[in-house]
Amino acid sequence: MKIAINRESSVPMTEQIVSAMEQWIRSREAHAGAKLPSIRRLAEECGISRFPVIEAYDRLVSLGYIESRHGSGFYVSGRIAKLERCGASDPRRAEEESNYILQQFNHPGDTLKLGSGFIPEAWRDMDGIAQAVRHVARTDHGSLIDYATPLGNAALREHLQARIAPLGIRADASQILITSGASQAVDLIVRYMLRAGDTMFVEDPGYYNLFGLLKLHGVNVVGIPRTASGPDIEVLQAELQRHRPRAVFVNTVFHNPTGTVVAPSVAFRLLQLAHEYDFTIVEDDIYADFQADTTDRLAALDQLERVVYIGGLSKTLSSSLRIGFIAASRKIVKDLGDVKMLTSISGSPFAEAVALTMLERGAYRKFLERLRRRMTDALGATTSTLEAHGWQLFAPPVGGKFVWARVPHIDDPQRLMACASESGVIIAPGSYFRPHGEPSPWIRINAAYAQDRRAHAFFERAGQLDAEAPTPPVRERALIA
Amino acid sequence: MKIAINRESSVPMTEQIVSAMEQWIRSREAHAGAKLPSIRRLAEECGISRFPVIEAYDRLVSLGYIESRHGSGFYVSGRIAKLERCGASDPRRAEEESNYILQQFNHPGDTLKLGSGFIPEAWRDMDGIAQAVRHVARTDHGSLIDYATPLGNAALREHLQARIAPLGIRADASQILITSGASQAVDLIVRYMLRAGDTMFVEDPGYYNLFGLLKLHGVNVVGIPRTASGPDIEVLQAELQRHRPRAVFVNTVFHNPTGTVVAPSVAFRLLQLAHEYDFTIVEDDIYADFQADTTDRLAALDQLERVVYIGGLSKTLSSSLRIGFIAASRKIVKDLGDVKMLTSISGSPFAEAVALTMLERGAYRKFLERLRRRMTDALGATTSTLEAHGWQLFAPPVGGKFVWARVPHIDDPQRLMACASESGVIIAPGSYFRPHGEPSPWIRINAAYAQDRRAHAFFERAGQLDAEAPTPPVRERALIA
Repeated sequence: MKIAINRESSVPMTEQIVSAMEQWIRSREAHAGAKLPSIRRLAEECGISRFPVIEAYDRLVSLGYIESRHGSGFYVSGRIAKLERCGASDPRRAEEESNYILQQFNHPGDTLKLGSGFIPEAWRDMDGIAQAVRHVARTDHGSLIDYATPLGNAALREHLQARIAPLGIRADASQILITSGASQAVDLIVRYMLRAGDTMFVEDPGYYNLFGLLKLHGVNVVGIPRTASGPDIEVLQAELQRHRPRAVFVNTVFHNPTGTVVAPSVAFRLLQLAHEYDFTIVEDDIYADFQADTTDRLAALDQLERVVYIGGLSKTLSSSLRIGFIAASRKIVKDLGDVKMLTSISGSPFAEAVALTMLERGAYRKFLERLRRRMTDALGATTSTLEAHGWQLFAPPVGGKFVWARVPHIDDPQRLMACASESGVIIAPGSYFRPHGEPSPWIRINAAYAQDRRAHAFFERAGQLDAEAPTPPVRERALIA
Repeated sequence: MKIAINRESSVPMTEQIVSAMEQWIRSREAHAGAKLPSIRRLAEECGISRFPVIEAYDRLVSLGYIESRHGSGFYVSGRIAKLERCGASDPRRAEEESNYILQQFNHPGDTLKLGSGFIPEAWRDMDGIAQAVRHVARTDHGSLIDYATPLGNAALREHLQARIAPLGIRADASQILITSGASQAVDLIVRYMLRAGDTMFVEDPGYYNLFGLLKLHGVNVVGIPRTASGPDIEVLQAELQRHRPRAVFVNTVFHNPTGTVVAPSVAFRLLQLAHEYDFTIVEDDIYADFQADTTDRLAALDQLERVVYIGGLSKTLSSSLRIGFIAASRKIVKDLGDVKMLTSISGSPFAEAVALTMLERGAYRKFLERLRRRMTDALGATTSTLEAHGWQLFAPPVGGKFVWARVPHIDDPQRLMACASESGVIIAPGSYFRPHGEPSPWIRINAAYAQDRRAHAFFERAGQLDAEAPTPPVRERALIA
């Protein structure tokens, strides 16, 4: 092993040594137990002072790559294989994961975003929000400049509490924490509950942004297949023999990306296993407001004992307001509130007041009624069109935005992407929704965009694809959200 | 050691074992090298399955409390003393730190918040902000519902870039990242730059919320005394012989809590040391807009090579908008943008548009001119009053909000707090601003609140305190921000 230090580089010398060593060790050229050059020798070889070498070795020890043996020197650690399995990643390598998300912001203007995670702008209640904004600006000057209270606006928390009560989730106001979007909710829970090297089970396919966050945090991500009725309980049981997850993440209703709902029997088994194997269930219910007729929530069955529940208004009301929330036991809400305060001080009282105004005035309820009717119509029409063109559905859509579908004889998603591109459509290929980017023949379709003639052209063209034809090259990147 | 497991508790068994062991080890009853009961034996003794014991031991190993010796069992780690020194804390114990912050939200209605970190509501530009809010709600509907772009509003980034250019900081728009308040800026930098066990140097006294965040993150926090001209360079050099900090945090202008400004010679030495010892300087400049006549910024001298610069609008324009920003090298901004996306998706385009409107229309500039005049007058008057009553100033105030002062013969801050309480005033005692809550006879005074007759009464009464009198009990808690 030879390390070349670049003194002109803006990368600190310590960093250069750490990466060179990391690469060497990860490349498997270094076997476990191999001895490293002494600090003095490496410093001499590189022609640098010993400080950066000392720090680099310190960091490599704390990263688990090398071990210090007292009086004897430094050795390549035997734990590398374990580290590799855990997928513990460097925060400085968040790039790949965030690229997936980045694409949702790069809108080629005239392309149909058929894989989008959002509802169309025209379906939102712009006037209602604009009115609420003006109302708050006029009547609540303090909210324009102050910090928010630690748990968030008390009246808004009461409204959120009243919204989950009909789902059967009993929580008092001290069990609700307002967050900056459901994203902060997930982030706070991950920071609170998991340490680097811990294991979390996620659904496969599932919410891709979570996968990136967990990897950033150094968490071992294990995928459990998502069936039409929820996480596959048999696989879950088998994986519980191999891992001790601290938490299992489940998107109960109108699951992203399959659009399915967890069946009551599956919910019950999940909770039984949570007790038996002592893990927490993080229930993601951010699509709750798309649902008219209530189905079982894990948090309702369990009454927030082993379930931490996440909701939010970004998918319906507005992503800009950044209003999400957590419902959990008093103890957990208090602790998460402390973490929220240390990491972000507070949310925006203005955004909280605007959301509250929408809930109070009933504008949100009326908006949701319209939205659900629209979504139901769009889902029905999309299903018919897809079936007419020979597509296969993962499950009959029951609500929400998403249809998870494939062309039966086409296994290579590149072919669908190329076909989409020719029709002026960008799609969200299935691999994006898999914990480690594994291949998938499925794509996510947002029914709200599927009535466009470009979508119809794509469905028809893709349905006629020849199973045997070679894969054409794809220029454009897919778009997801 | 005997562990009593409570099967009725909502606390998972693993958690119960981990806390009991932690307490035992921290209590020093356990000496380094002491052997722990085997997994089988502990499970039997507690009458539970082995799974929670296995997980508890795993977690204690990863926390550094115990070590596994192959084929021999588990032993109390020799690293406990080191851990204690590092102050590495469990995220689940963020409580104590966040309590400090919490107090700022608990406003006893009729008490004067003399230690507050905010300017009074009457000093803010409420009408300006309300107008900007209505303007954006009317003209930019997309901002009411969309996510923001990854780095934040491009036009706002250009305005922020133009604001730091006169300070001598040259950054193009790809070097500016908008954050949800300066708090998210600090949090992103900590997550990006530091790992548990790393060391960061902070100023003592300094920004207390940072201390809590660093401890939450498991970072070793080392305080460097803050003199009237910046961090004490001699102490810094001495500490650099003992530690290898990855970063040093410096609040350059109108330092919180002392109100002082880093002198050019100190800035130069800091940067020299950063090169020599290979660390990054995190320059906190959130009070920049209180300054009329520019002084040297570290980021200007260094041109963002080793300096990551933090600014924001919370201290002047509005805390509710949650607008902060980072200026750094392109590489760091790109990486921090990736971390921002994975952890929060995006900021609020509405808040960004409102801030932009204030900057574009010149409303913010006019507001700042008024604010600076007011602050200058308030600082002058506060200084005279304090001196008239025999108080000692840490340094002659040169700007900003804060005066760091004490009564020369009174060492016990409890006596000042009691005296404040009698005058209807709550103060921010010095220990809050010290990295590990060390005692301090100083208090932070916000000059904007110091013209109130209750403040005058407190200054007078405290100046007359008898050095020999016993400490009275204090009922009310102090208030800071």
